[in-house]
Amino acid sequence: MAAALATESSSNVQEMLDIEQNKSNERAQWVLNAPKPPGFWQELVNSVRETFFPHRRKFKNEHDGFNLVFTFLHGLFPILHWCRNYKASKFRNDLMAGLTLASLCIPQSIGYATLAKLDPQYGLYTSVVPPLIYAVMGTSREIAIGPVAVVSLLLSSMIQKVQDPLANPIAYRNFVLTATFFAGIFQASFGLFRLGFLIDILSHAAVVGFMAGAAMVIGLQQLKGLLGIPHFTNKTDAISVVKAVWNSLHHTWSPQNFILGCSFLCFILTTRYLGRKKRKLFWLPAIAPLVSVILSTLFVFLTRADKHGVKIVKHIDRGLNPSSVHQIQFHGQHVGEVAKIGFVAAIVALAEAIAVGRSFASIKGYRLDGNKEMVAMGFMNIVGSFTSCYVATGSFSRSAVNFRAGCESTVSNIVMAITVLISLEFFTRLLYYTPMAILASIIMSALPGLIDFNEFYNIWKVDKLDFLACIGAFFGVLFASVEIGLLVAVTISFAKIILISIQPGTEKLGKLPGTDLFCDVDQYPMAVKTPGILIIRVKSALLCFANANSVRERIMRWITEEEEEEEKESSQRKARKNTQLVLLDLSNMMNIDTSGLASLEELRKTLDSNGIELAIANPRWQVIHKLKMANFVDKIRGRIFLTVGEAMASCLGA
Amino acid sequence: MAAALATESSSNVQEMLDIEQNKSNERAQWVLNAPKPPGFWQELVNSVRETFFPHRRKFKNEHDGFNLVFTFLHGLFPILHWCRNYKASKFRNDLMAGLTLASLCIPQSIGYATLAKLDPQYGLYTSVVPPLIYAVMGTSREIAIGPVAVVSLLLSSMIQKVQDPLANPIAYRNFVLTATFFAGIFQASFGLFRLGFLIDILSHAAVVGFMAGAAMVIGLQQLKGLLGIPHFTNKTDAISVVKAVWNSLHHTWSPQNFILGCSFLCFILTTRYLGRKKRKLFWLPAIAPLVSVILSTLFVFLTRADKHGVKIVKHIDRGLNPSSVHQIQFHGQHVGEVAKIGFVAAIVALAEAIAVGRSFASIKGYRLDGNKEMVAMGFMNIVGSFTSCYVATGSFSRSAVNFRAGCESTVSNIVMAITVLISLEFFTRLLYYTPMAILASIIMSALPGLIDFNEFYNIWKVDKLDFLACIGAFFGVLFASVEIGLLVAVTISFAKIILISIQPGTEKLGKLPGTDLFCDVDQYPMAVKTPGILIIRVKSALLCFANANSVRERIMRWITEEEEEEEKESSQRKARKNTQLVLLDLSNMMNIDTSGLASLEELRKTLDSNGIELAIANPRWQVIHKLKMANFVDKIRGRIFLTVGEAMASCLGA
Repeated sequence: MAAALATESSSNVQEMLDIEQNKSNERAQWVLNAPKPPGFWQELVNSVRETFFPHRRKFKNEHDGFNLVFTFLHGLFPILHWCRNYKASKFRNDLMAGLTLASLCIPQSIGYATLAKLDPQYGLYTSVVPPLIYAVMGTSREIAIGPVAVVSLLLSSMIQKVQDPLANPIAYRNFVLTATFFAGIFQASFGLFRLGFLIDILSHAAVVGFMAGAAMVIGLQQLKGLLGIPHFTNKTDAISVVKAVWNSLHHTWSPQNFILGCSFLCFILTTRYLGRKKRKLFWLPAIAPLVSVILSTLFVFLTRADKHGVKIVKHIDRGLNPSSVHQIQFHGQHVGEVAKIGFVAAIVALAEAIAVGRSFASIKGYRLDGNKEMVAMGFMNIVGSFTSCYVATGSFSRSAVNFRAGCESTVSNIVMAITVLISLEFFTRLLYYTPMAILASIIMSALPGLIDFNEFYNIWKVDKLDFLACIGAFFGVLFASVEIGLLVAVTISFAKIILISIQPGTEKLGKLPGTDLFCDVDQYPMAVKTPGILIIRVKSALLCFANANSVRERIMRWITEEEEEEEKESSQRKARKNTQLVLLDLSNMMNIDTSGLASLEELRKTLDSNGIELAIANPRWQVIHKLKMANFVDKIRGRIFLTVGEAMASCLGA
Repeated sequence: MAAALATESSSNVQEMLDIEQNKSNERAQWVLNAPKPPGFWQELVNSVRETFFPHRRKFKNEHDGFNLVFTFLHGLFPILHWCRNYKASKFRNDLMAGLTLASLCIPQSIGYATLAKLDPQYGLYTSVVPPLIYAVMGTSREIAIGPVAVVSLLLSSMIQKVQDPLANPIAYRNFVLTATFFAGIFQASFGLFRLGFLIDILSHAAVVGFMAGAAMVIGLQQLKGLLGIPHFTNKTDAISVVKAVWNSLHHTWSPQNFILGCSFLCFILTTRYLGRKKRKLFWLPAIAPLVSVILSTLFVFLTRADKHGVKIVKHIDRGLNPSSVHQIQFHGQHVGEVAKIGFVAAIVALAEAIAVGRSFASIKGYRLDGNKEMVAMGFMNIVGSFTSCYVATGSFSRSAVNFRAGCESTVSNIVMAITVLISLEFFTRLLYYTPMAILASIIMSALPGLIDFNEFYNIWKVDKLDFLACIGAFFGVLFASVEIGLLVAVTISFAKIILISIQPGTEKLGKLPGTDLFCDVDQYPMAVKTPGILIIRVKSALLCFANANSVRERIMRWITEEEEEEEKESSQRKARKNTQLVLLDLSNMMNIDTSGLASLEELRKTLDSNGIELAIANPRWQVIHKLKMANFVDKIRGRIFLTVGEAMASCLGA
């Protein structure tokens, strides 16, 4: 009776096991009979479609012609969308923000124009047309458009290799305008062809290092104005500049300039400190530069200090932006080079603007469309290049001021542009006696915002290779040149991707107690290994020519090590069985190439001739497809499973 | 009563749920409290140690000095290991294999020497010393060492750019020997410093394409000998060669050479066909070249055809390898260039030899140590360069003959070397009347083995980008030059790695019925989605600057698409709830950089401001560590889980 019961219960157990086995087999069939993954061409088409028409669904039910045009115009000019809800209260905020912005923008624009080695009015021109264009096309509400320090430095340092600005300032200016035109064309086409990912080649770490290096270089350049040195080096690297300054200190510098500049630099920095201490005084650092300009100009005018060696701005052309359509050059031997400069300027300008825009958008919780932004920036620079502007973009420092002044929309940019326009028309004469040293100190006062020590430390903490790219960009810009800094950063970033992608990572898995999960025994020390079975997960996403052999050899070494360990453990006891099964968890491997397939096949053969079975768990879509194509599945048929757990159950049961 | 029961049972259920919840919480703690992963420096040290001392455990208990020396010698000279078990029966097999090998090797060596633009005896020299060195140091039992076609072509095509072999043959030869010396040094140091992965930069696909292209180029080069053209181009690209042949066809070719060459080519190909048909006749194609040489030489000698335009080999120096220590040059302006040529030759030679060695080792089921092989090859080339040999390596065609002839160990190489040595001492005179056309036809007959149409088709079938690298190498070699072909292949291969690594892959997951598994809904169409919850797995192994933004934007688009779909489905019904939870499965992401962290943080903020929760499942070791470092964990505390299932349970329950 008891025996019968036992038999029955054991047959029940057997039945359950059989059912379980059948289910497991069925699930293994799911793996083997997965639909064919999209082929190479299909994926190519998909990724092109994804890139160019991400919102194609939206248009499906809008075949109506009027609607299409309407949607298109709305897409191109976001102002049409939000202007209907624009209220007087918002305008009051924007007006205040715009005026604050203008007071900071006017002295900075003049300073950046001298940094770009152009006449001062070109900086002001650049603060008029581009902001107006951006206001109707842009999607960011906080960005303040205009000339910025880094792009000014980039343009002057690269274009002066083509044309010396002292020898022929008009030819130099034409090259700057041409480069601006090209930059606009590149930016607009990045946006139109949805190549937004192109600006992603500058990693966050690279931008941080590059900005810091550029800030140092710009600061060093300002020593010319601050010390009143007449003859300065054209090079931008730290060593040449320090040498030039050192040489000048022996003969030709003027202490008046230095004292004037430094005292106002201290004034500006003090106001910034106050502005940071008390949030209500945010306008103080914003208007401090303009106050400095007014005070120092008055001082020079009253004391006639320009007769005693204080360098002044002198004549600034008055009036609106003149047309510069005919100054853009498409002929001549340097067009290719200038286009290249335009490309670099386009990337750097976009990197700064989009970093600024994104950070404020995420604070306010709205989404910035990178491609639309690029189209807007492109158009504003193309139109700018026709109206005597050089490359404009979103400024770190002024956008922060705009945000803190409580801007509500791009109307603050319009207010700023109109204010600058009025100044150009009426007040340029008043700037005749403005000392150059003040412009230098205004530029210098904006630089600390470009050097982010915290971020340097964060990058070091989180990722050492990122930090290498960051430091590479920093030292490259500081000690070689702007382009070399960028190149170093991009090279290190991509080398890092290759290194991480091909590193032959494998990890041993163990079962987490109380679950059916198999996890890395290093990450989860509580995971338990099963004797006689070696579960290995390949960490690389791509098993390819560069890592396939290393992975195979590492797996063979795991086996050897495992056996040695077991031998040690069982030296007293009877000889234990060695590794019988190697279970490869392929859940991380997204793709495999022909070398990888060859390597797996070799692994299988070697294990086979050592009497060890090979089983595979959770191969991904492309991988199982390729394993099928390469007839690997036929060779280990019956040993491909959906999960590690099922593979274990099946192999132990068999 | 019933109510009490129900209450009790419901409290039981509640209790069980609580227990389950506690367990799940505990497991989430496992994720959060994982030990610190190895830092950057630790990983660097580990990977260096792994590379240089993979077998360090073995030495642990062998501190005995004698043992150490013994192990070291055994490692360096595997012959010490296997010679103790070497038996007469094995020697009989090796003797037969060696003699067969020699009969194929002698005519091929002479032919390859002319391909390398050296005097014929240098090919024979190269078949003497390197095989002897390899026999005592190498681990492969089947490889047949000697000059090979591709390396001969590579050397001549690259060195003749430095020195014209017709203008100054002695200087040219010195450069070849110097390049051989450098190749040996590079190979030995790859092995000693365990840089075996360096030869992995030539992917399988690249090697297939390169070999096929090189075979075509070599075949075209043989037209010179086959047609008896006196003046030929120095270039190797197909267009130049075809042009040169076309021009010669109008004046200077000699039909006698062509008829002689072609008839023996037909003879050799026929024997190969017979050898393939009947396995027993494997020796027929192996000795056919030697038979052709003997027959054709006799024919020319008897008919004095050399007086009627048939070009002959003429004088071959007799005697042993002369020393060439003093011909290796370390001074002069071309040393750098020659070292570069040595580097390329070292890589190509190793790629061929190790491909050959591995394929036979995996057939016979033993393991080939790549690093030891490289040391052996390096030493044999260094010693070779001192004894008038040029770069030797394992030959595809001769190794196959060696294998089929039943070789048992490297003794067959010794037998072959001694046979060649005897021929050099006694029989070189007999080769005076050997027609050049025969050498050309022997080389041509070996070429089909280098073009693997099946493999071309397989690569096309399995991986289109691999095929691009393959075809790139093929056309590069054929229409540009050997170096350009290699460069194209390596560039495409690495571009592919970058492309695949940074492609911003994401996939929607669904629950597999009857399991707790969540899988890609495209791969497993039976997977079921949960309404209101979007489970997304990031496919990239590295969330970095190059793909972080695209991944973020793709996720936002998934949400929009999901909501649109739900709206469509529920248009008749009452407004359904939209996406409430985005669950990111990070199990595939091995690493994340600062841009990736910034992007995740931005995603979190954007979702937050739209009232959607973000949860994370199964972050890997480095990722959870970096999320902790970046304070991301604190921001979504309580929403990091071990598995997707637990995350679902917890978020739905809450």
